[in-house]
Amino acid sequence: MAADMTVKILDESVGNVVLINLKGGKVIRGNLQGFDQHMNLVLEDSEELSEDNKTNGLGTIVVRGDNVVMISPPR
Amino acid sequence: MAADMTVKILDESVGNVVLINLKGGKVIRGNLQGFDQHMNLVLEDSEELSEDNKTNGLGTIVVRGDNVVMISPPR
Amino acid sequence: MAADMTVKILDESVGNVVLINLKGGKVIRGNLQGFDQHMNLVLEDSEELSEDNKTNGLGTIVVRGDNVVMISPPR
Amino acid sequence: MAADMTVKILDESVGNVVLINLKGGKVIRGNLQGFDQHMNLVLEDSEELSEDNKTNGLGTIVVRGDNVVMISPPR
Amino acid sequence: MAADMTVKILDESVGNVVLINLKGGKVIRGNLQGFDQHMNLVLEDSEELSEDNKTNGLGTIVVRGDNVVMISPPR
Amino acid sequence: MAADMTVKILDESVGNVVLINLKGGKVIRGNLQGFDQHMNLVLEDSEELSEDNKTNGLGTIVVRGDNVVMISPPR
Amino acid sequence: MAADMTVKILDESVGNVVLINLKGGKVIRGNLQGFDQHMNLVLEDSEELSEDNKTNGLGTIVVRGDNVVMISPPR
Repeated sequence: MAADMTVKILDESVGNVVLINLKGGKVIRGNLQGFDQHMNLVLEDSEELSEDNKTNGLGTIVVRGDNVVMISPPR
Repeated sequence: MAADMTVKILDESVGNVVLINLKGGKVIRGNLQGFDQHMNLVLEDSEELSEDNKTNGLGTIVVRGDNVVMISPPR
Repeated sequence: MAADMTVKILDESVGNVVLINLKGGKVIRGNLQGFDQHMNLVLEDSEELSEDNKTNGLGTIVVRGDNVVMISPPR
Repeated sequence: MAADMTVKILDESVGNVVLINLKGGKVIRGNLQGFDQHMNLVLEDSEELSEDNKTNGLGTIVVRGDNVVMISPPR
Repeated sequence: MAADMTVKILDESVGNVVLINLKGGKVIRGNLQGFDQHMNLVLEDSEELSEDNKTNGLGTIVVRGDNVVMISPPR
Repeated sequence: MAADMTVKILDESVGNVVLINLKGGKVIRGNLQGFDQHMNLVLEDSEELSEDNKTNGLGTIVVRGDNVVMISPPR
Repeated sequence: MAADMTVKILDESVGNVVLINLKGGKVIRGNLQGFDQHMNLVLEDSEELSEDNKTNGLGTIVVRGDNVVMISPPR
């Protein structure tokens, strides 16, 4: 089984900009500083992306993991 | 893995003003007094921010962690 | 870490009037008699506050903790 | 801490008529026969109360605890 | 405490017709064959009751317990 | 208590066509290949049934158990 | 019991393109790189499928398992 893949991908993304899709439709972009087994996330220099491509600066944030739908590591 | 980052950021925020986004859209600002592993929070001098930039004073509150979407520590 | 703050604040509020915000928007005011680790609450002389500032007497109630959004201890 | 208050209040209510508020707005009145740590309830001679003050007899019912918002013991 | 009341009532209902209210409003009637601690249920000769008092035969079904609101044992 | 009834019914259904009702209203029909204690299901030759009685072939699928409302074994 | 079927099917799908149905209706297609016991998934070369058959490239993503409804392995 490839069970530790999630941790590996997130671990490799620390220090890089990731895109986070939250339940309810919010999209957040920020530099991943850390995460835990609940997918609680710490993002730095983060901003919320609106549908009209505007951004709203959020600075450093803690995201509670149960709100997360998808995380896109940097390409 | 950077697992303890969430605790570290919240721990450093104790005694400072944080911004809390709750499920359903409420936004609360207050001085973080404490938190636990469920992200239950204690805030002092807290106030709810309305969309029209008015504020509604709440004093000291306990927020149940499962309502929390994001926490913004002080910049 | 300031982990036991939530319990401390609730513990100090026992015997006093607290304001409870529930999921779905209900607001309850009552004298806190007890609580547990799920934030199940026992309130005495409680009443529901309507938006038009009317109150609806509820007497003693047990509130199941997973409905709780915020608890405001007495100021 | 006053942690066992919830159990104490429910325990004292066994054999008496209680009012139950469920998620979604249903209100049930019935004679409490038993409960467990999930707040699963057994009610006897129970009835659903409609908004127009009509009642709909339900007899004995088991209520799954995760649907419960509030329980009002007899006054 | 009367903690085992839920199990006792369900246990006595095995082999009898029960009425099940599900989240979302569905009502199912069927002969209870078994249940477990999650309130997962097995019903035989079950049917869904529509609001217009029609019934829709379902035969034997397994109901996942987290959908259950109330169970009415036979009177 | 008849606690293992759920497992027994599902176990007897392996290799047979079952009907699955999901939260949100989707109905899936397929040949049950396996299941676990969360009611995660593996179905083969599965298809989604639309309200207009059309079917949409899905092939082999894994269904996450927390979406399941009811499972109807073959009659 | 056929309990390990879910793991077996997912395990065999690693390295292949799978289709993921999420709560809320999103459909994602991508090459499965890994999964864990919560059905957290890692997908590579993934894309979101819109109802008008357009696709939106997502690259590598981590999907939090509690959002997953169904996973279709390659046929």
